[in-house]
Amino acid sequence: MCSKIERTEFKVYPFHTDFQGKLSMSVLGNHLLNCSENHAVNRGFGEMAKNGTVYRWVLSRLVIEMFEMPKNGDKFFIDTWISNVYLYFTDRNYRITDSEGKAIGYAKAVWAMIDQADRKPKDLHELHGTTIDQYIDEETECPIAKASRVKPLAEDTYTKSIDTEYSDIDLNGHVNSIKYIEHILNLFNLEHYKQMSVKRFEIAYMAESYYGDVLKLYLRDNANDTFDAEAQKDSHDDAKNTVLVRCSMKFE
Amino acid sequence: MCSKIERTEFKVYPFHTDFQGKLSMSVLGNHLLNCSENHAVNRGFGEMAKNGTVYRWVLSRLVIEMFEMPKNGDKFFIDTWISNVYLYFTDRNYRITDSEGKAIGYAKAVWAMIDQADRKPKDLHELHGTTIDQYIDEETECPIAKASRVKPLAEDTYTKSIDTEYSDIDLNGHVNSIKYIEHILNLFNLEHYKQMSVKRFEIAYMAESYYGDVLKLYLRDNANDTFDAEAQKDSHDDAKNTVLVRCSMKFE
Repeated sequence: MCSKIERTEFKVYPFHTDFQGKLSMSVLGNHLLNCSENHAVNRGFGEMAKNGTVYRWVLSRLVIEMFEMPKNGDKFFIDTWISNVYLYFTDRNYRITDSEGKAIGYAKAVWAMIDQADRKPKDLHELHGTTIDQYIDEETECPIAKASRVKPLAEDTYTKSIDTEYSDIDLNGHVNSIKYIEHILNLFNLEHYKQMSVKRFEIAYMAESYYGDVLKLYLRDNANDTFDAEAQKDSHDDAKNTVLVRCSMKFE
Repeated sequence: MCSKIERTEFKVYPFHTDFQGKLSMSVLGNHLLNCSENHAVNRGFGEMAKNGTVYRWVLSRLVIEMFEMPKNGDKFFIDTWISNVYLYFTDRNYRITDSEGKAIGYAKAVWAMIDQADRKPKDLHELHGTTIDQYIDEETECPIAKASRVKPLAEDTYTKSIDTEYSDIDLNGHVNSIKYIEHILNLFNLEHYKQMSVKRFEIAYMAESYYGDVLKLYLRDNANDTFDAEAQKDSHDDAKNTVLVRCSMKFE
């Protein structure tokens, strides 16, 4: 049996940083997702095919809180473990440490496993019961607040629309979870990032969008350097738009 | 002394693929650049600071030719080595092999080292002479054609404009080399990628663009599944636009 916690070492490459040489939040997001994949695959509960059906993990919520973002050339580690398994969801935690072992950030995610055909979450114990349960680690601490409930954004917070493109689409055929983060962080200009950094970023994935969809982005300034954002799928007619993701950010 | 060739192992993660589960060309591009960085740093000719001046490697040309793109879950290797050092430029080669050692693609790049203040290329032998020369490998083969000279694109090939955003900008303060590749590949729709894949991609970096610039993208269909593309910087007045990159693609 593997240990409950999977550790992966990373280095910040120059082509993975923002203009200030700090690791891009979207690259960190991708690393977290890839670590989750590694952790699950190495323990026998990764993507699976059963009776002709393909089951894949999809991200439902993600919270990242960084005290210090690694910089160009820095080595760092991501530890990940599962803290809970419910009927349809797992809680997964992450600890980001610098090369000296000091925690520089934490993250929490909620994942579901969907049937690729009907896109619905499946009973995790039916799929992975004893395989996954032995890896639940309820002791290791992940001392950041859980995701909050972001209030819907009003129409007057509409900021801009973007067309989904080839590179937005992942192998599930929908817009890549991390691309939403990139699109939302692009709502702030370079001046903003010269003055402050993202301290906490949380996002809830509420519906899927596909190639050809137009993403309508909303941004609300809540004062005290906190902002909420939303991406909706433009319905192209009088019907109500569908909310795709809702997001909350704290800068400092 | 290190070996002349640096090898890095990679795995294709689900969040690094396109909608068909094949490694994204932009992620591969990033891997190639990061391997170059590793190769140079480990041999003592990476980014350097001397008398208060910072010198950084910048990419001048890149050609990637893939016989087979690695798929989700595949392990693969990138080997990189330097084949030539001129006054201002180095030729760097890459071989991409699958987990069984079969070559599945090659790449060639031309790099220059610039003074970060004046953005001009510097004499490489003055900066790294004996350090870099001992690593020149002229024997190992990289059997793909060198970059060609792409003819300028006419005004009637104009396709669309995009605003540069926070996530486009790298730590040199200019638009990330790989982002141009992503923007250009986004000029084709999903139907196109369902029918064919990029076999050869070549790009020449001719001028830099910065935050706030508007990128005008041009695309020319040369028949036989070959296309040329160009990104220009919109001058916002009657002056001639500046050509930023010129690119040639072969699909199959």
